[in-house]
Amino acid sequence: MTIRIVLVGTTHPGNIGATARAMKNMGLGDLVLVAPRSFPHEEATARASGAEDVLAAARVVGSLEAAVADCVWVAGASARQRSIAWPELSAREAAEKATAESASGPVALVFGPEKSGLSNDDLARCQALLYIPTAPEFSSLNLAMAVQVVTYEVQMQRASGREPPEREVRPATAGEMENFFRHLEELLLAARFLDPDNPRHLMKRLRRLFARAEPDMNEINILRGILASLAPAERRRDRE
Amino acid sequence: MTIRIVLVGTTHPGNIGATARAMKNMGLGDLVLVAPRSFPHEEATARASGAEDVLAAARVVGSLEAAVADCVWVAGASARQRSIAWPELSAREAAEKATAESASGPVALVFGPEKSGLSNDDLARCQALLYIPTAPEFSSLNLAMAVQVVTYEVQMQRASGREPPEREVRPATAGEMENFFRHLEELLLAARFLDPDNPRHLMKRLRRLFARAEPDMNEINILRGILASLAPAERRRDRE
Repeated sequence: MTIRIVLVGTTHPGNIGATARAMKNMGLGDLVLVAPRSFPHEEATARASGAEDVLAAARVVGSLEAAVADCVWVAGASARQRSIAWPELSAREAAEKATAESASGPVALVFGPEKSGLSNDDLARCQALLYIPTAPEFSSLNLAMAVQVVTYEVQMQRASGREPPEREVRPATAGEMENFFRHLEELLLAARFLDPDNPRHLMKRLRRLFARAEPDMNEINILRGILASLAPAERRRDRE
Repeated sequence: MTIRIVLVGTTHPGNIGATARAMKNMGLGDLVLVAPRSFPHEEATARASGAEDVLAAARVVGSLEAAVADCVWVAGASARQRSIAWPELSAREAAEKATAESASGPVALVFGPEKSGLSNDDLARCQALLYIPTAPEFSSLNLAMAVQVVTYEVQMQRASGREPPEREVRPATAGEMENFFRHLEELLLAARFLDPDNPRHLMKRLRRLFARAEPDMNEINILRGILASLAPAERRRDRE
């Protein structure tokens, strides 16, 4: 049962250390850093203060895609109410969902850079947005504070001792979803439905739609089969 | 409706700044510092990062008693399960209680020094202990992180929009309770029930008992009347 914390493009190494401590306080140990500005760093070590083991075990990767490829559910932290329609969960709701999904495989809670937050491209790789309820006039939490609140809710959820319902088939992983989206995009380009010079957010919209559906492994295999069967004749011949 | 954050004997000024930010994120603005080691301090200002107004309005006082004299309910943060029997509330329960009591007057949530936490003397001035559920093997949160979790629960409580039940008579303030305890101690000394050379935690036990009872203003006046009526004859004559 892995609930992973992913920090993307963190600027201040102190926040990485404080995140490690916050995680360990709440019983979590799987930290992945996507392209941090400075790591390892003495300030990270100083702020970890008892959670140096979490810091030492942290993995550094180059992209969010690599950080979550094996995950069955991925939520990205974001201020509330973006203009795009996207499932939004409060920290409490996200902790509940993450705990339930973690019965099927690793899940990831993703936090963006201090100043800017997650990019729209990175948010498009998440199945849900996660927000922390705040006072409306001052909503920007320090990064490690945000991790603390969310991991606290995870701990509250676990301590409640409710067993999440078991799924019969495990959800598709983020990596399987990415392969599906690549396959789909390829097909839409070949079919000239998707115009590379004027993509009009088509792929982003399709990502959102399928993310909401939360396909399981079998369903994603069926979808891949459908895509393969729909390839234009000349391409299908190439493959044969 | 005031929910005050009181930091006692804070060592690192950065934690004071981070506390101010955490409070403002959750819509709180009343910060009282009891004998901080260094304040004001540039590190506090740096970490406040948008909450400089909360920092500027913070009051510095010399004792916890002064910080909470006007409060109708006071809870002190502490690791869970002290040996002394004392009402213990989780952060969520404390936020609920604090929100309800704040309809009657100011309430205070008190946090001790980074290394040692609140002293037993300071805890004796609280009506309840407040703990943050953590992983059992690593339970010591950073000070500002603890404030963030508790103020987050206050915000969640407020956002739930449930109206706390109104009390007919306001609770006694911490200052009124202190006057009562001083009066009681004086009487017990005069009656030679309390032996100053061997106090056996008597006052601490009485504090706990009356704290649990949560007397209102009328009740504390009645108790004071009883104490006055019980003064040994020679002392009563002195007063007349």
